[in-house]
Amino acid sequence: MKARAAVAFGAGKPLSIEEVDIEGPKEGEVVVEIKATGICHTDAFTLSGEDPEGAFPTILGHEGAGVVVDTGPGVRHLKKGDHVIPLYTPECRECDYCLNPKTNLCQAIRGTQGQGVMPDGTSRFSLNGEKLLHYMGCSTFSNITVLPEIALAKIREDAPFDKVCYIGCGVTTGIGAVINTAKVEPGANVVVFGLGGIGLNVIQGARLVGANMIVGVDLNPEKKAMAERFGMTHFVNPKDIEGDLVPYLVELTGGGADYSFECIGNTNTMRQALECAHKGWGESIIIGVAGAGQEISTRPFQLVTGRSWRGTAFGGARGRTDVPRIVDWYMDGKIDIDPMITHTMPLERINEGFDLMHEGKSIRSVVTF
Amino acid sequence: MKARAAVAFGAGKPLSIEEVDIEGPKEGEVVVEIKATGICHTDAFTLSGEDPEGAFPTILGHEGAGVVVDTGPGVRHLKKGDHVIPLYTPECRECDYCLNPKTNLCQAIRGTQGQGVMPDGTSRFSLNGEKLLHYMGCSTFSNITVLPEIALAKIREDAPFDKVCYIGCGVTTGIGAVINTAKVEPGANVVVFGLGGIGLNVIQGARLVGANMIVGVDLNPEKKAMAERFGMTHFVNPKDIEGDLVPYLVELTGGGADYSFECIGNTNTMRQALECAHKGWGESIIIGVAGAGQEISTRPFQLVTGRSWRGTAFGGARGRTDVPRIVDWYMDGKIDIDPMITHTMPLERINEGFDLMHEGKSIRSVVTF
Repeated sequence: MKARAAVAFGAGKPLSIEEVDIEGPKEGEVVVEIKATGICHTDAFTLSGEDPEGAFPTILGHEGAGVVVDTGPGVRHLKKGDHVIPLYTPECRECDYCLNPKTNLCQAIRGTQGQGVMPDGTSRFSLNGEKLLHYMGCSTFSNITVLPEIALAKIREDAPFDKVCYIGCGVTTGIGAVINTAKVEPGANVVVFGLGGIGLNVIQGARLVGANMIVGVDLNPEKKAMAERFGMTHFVNPKDIEGDLVPYLVELTGGGADYSFECIGNTNTMRQALECAHKGWGESIIIGVAGAGQEISTRPFQLVTGRSWRGTAFGGARGRTDVPRIVDWYMDGKIDIDPMITHTMPLERINEGFDLMHEGKSIRSVVTF
Repeated sequence: MKARAAVAFGAGKPLSIEEVDIEGPKEGEVVVEIKATGICHTDAFTLSGEDPEGAFPTILGHEGAGVVVDTGPGVRHLKKGDHVIPLYTPECRECDYCLNPKTNLCQAIRGTQGQGVMPDGTSRFSLNGEKLLHYMGCSTFSNITVLPEIALAKIREDAPFDKVCYIGCGVTTGIGAVINTAKVEPGANVVVFGLGGIGLNVIQGARLVGANMIVGVDLNPEKKAMAERFGMTHFVNPKDIEGDLVPYLVELTGGGADYSFECIGNTNTMRQALECAHKGWGESIIIGVAGAGQEISTRPFQLVTGRSWRGTAFGGARGRTDVPRIVDWYMDGKIDIDPMITHTMPLERINEGFDLMHEGKSIRSVVTF
């Protein structure tokens, strides 16, 4: 089988559009025709070479939506024609992690996925006879990709691919952090650091569950209007306030945030997010991914006086269970996605999508096939 | 009124037994005859001069038990003859903190308590006409002390003062961290750093709730026998293992601690306690008090992959509600205290109690009046 893919041959190099060979599907595997894929900061992080686990050559992309075109032996839950969203955090429903209600970090295929191969230890992608690696178990920058059945969420057929692909990462990460990880209650005061694609989804998650104050913190005043559209009630630009940010936020929220979220990946703002949480019960959730080797710090007194420091991956969502529900919420108008998809482009122009991200001009660029 | 008290005149000086003058009680205040008091590391911390909030001259002590001898106007819940345990964390049942089920940190008298005075801003203690400060709102190193009604737990009259005084701090802090803060479930694997008075109570708290493995970590092999008596199932001496402690503990517990507790106050062991917690759901609870200005650090990846970092003060207990229950558990034989009270002495020999603590010879010394 042939596919058109944007191949990453090495760190810092532009992606190259190639006709690649696809093998498969093997036992438990599903071939998906990707119809749309978002371009996420995590793709850029790996492409930059800063990701210590990044390996090349590979086909990046992990935020897609598409249609099943073939299934391997033993596939039980999916058939040709099903609409699906690939899951970089699978849900096998059998491992110790899936059976523990406190986590979503299914470990069924963790080892091989991290190495860029399928669960049997091999790749399905090749170019001119040379193997290409999979990426985050998804490789959605190819119009055809192969995934294990446990890494695909089946979604309704009337959902538009070029919007719900974003549920494959950013939307679920932000909304899920609010509802699954923090379990924000109605009336809570929330502070969100960073008003990019994740922060906006945290904001609309907080609105969805009936939060009271939804404070957005960003150095860029141009982020304000869009964040307000998604439910932000107060905007704080650290450059515009006198004195330190933390006491300002504590006062603004009447004692501190019941929940704070760090959506940047900066260890300094991670500390600020913790320390602006309310004494006694404030919880701070780290969503952003910090650079390799960077550390967070605080005085333990911050924790002893009742704050808690936590993190979340893929919004604490169990993909096969939760992603279809979030698609429903989008289709029902409970959450909004369209305004966040600021740019759409064909695969051939995918490098422009990365440029727009680096220039801060896009919230999300989506490649359609 | 006169009292016999051990007065701390300054940092690093031995306590001096003095006959002091007691004033009171004023509105809402209760005069208590202290029958027994433990000597806690926190008293020693303040006496050392390292406590940034420490102030002198003062009457230390915060782990006592006694009998009500007088009540001021407006006291509604206590009468002369009631047996009580003083609470350095009061429970007013009216402030925003008391009304929030997520915290025990009643703020009703926080400001004045921290300044060493009663809620009206004045002290009830003086010596030769010079004011002495209260300490942690308790000052149990005096055979007569004065507290607000909200800072006294009424307990049963058949409980021995020289044992249940320990419930005023150490017992409740350790057991409460397990049952109130961590909410350890039956079958959980628990790792406890530091097998002193707090660690032993964490261990017996873990046993009380049906934990599976209860791993104790301490550099002193002499701590092993006593910890086993309270329920420790595995002892780890970091000096005896090859390689790093964290991976050793992760392997020993089959993936990491479901709950870990730091009972030392060392920021390095706080990090180890977090990092030995299980990926996906492990929670680490800081109980120990670190030195002024010290900070904890870790890679945020530890949190993003599902660990949470928390802290606890007074074991998350609401004193008036929870302390009488813990006294009942002691009287019913559900928990043990007697073996931890390794030394008993009259007030005149209180400085020996501090010496025994510093020499590591005591778990708890109790002064009886």
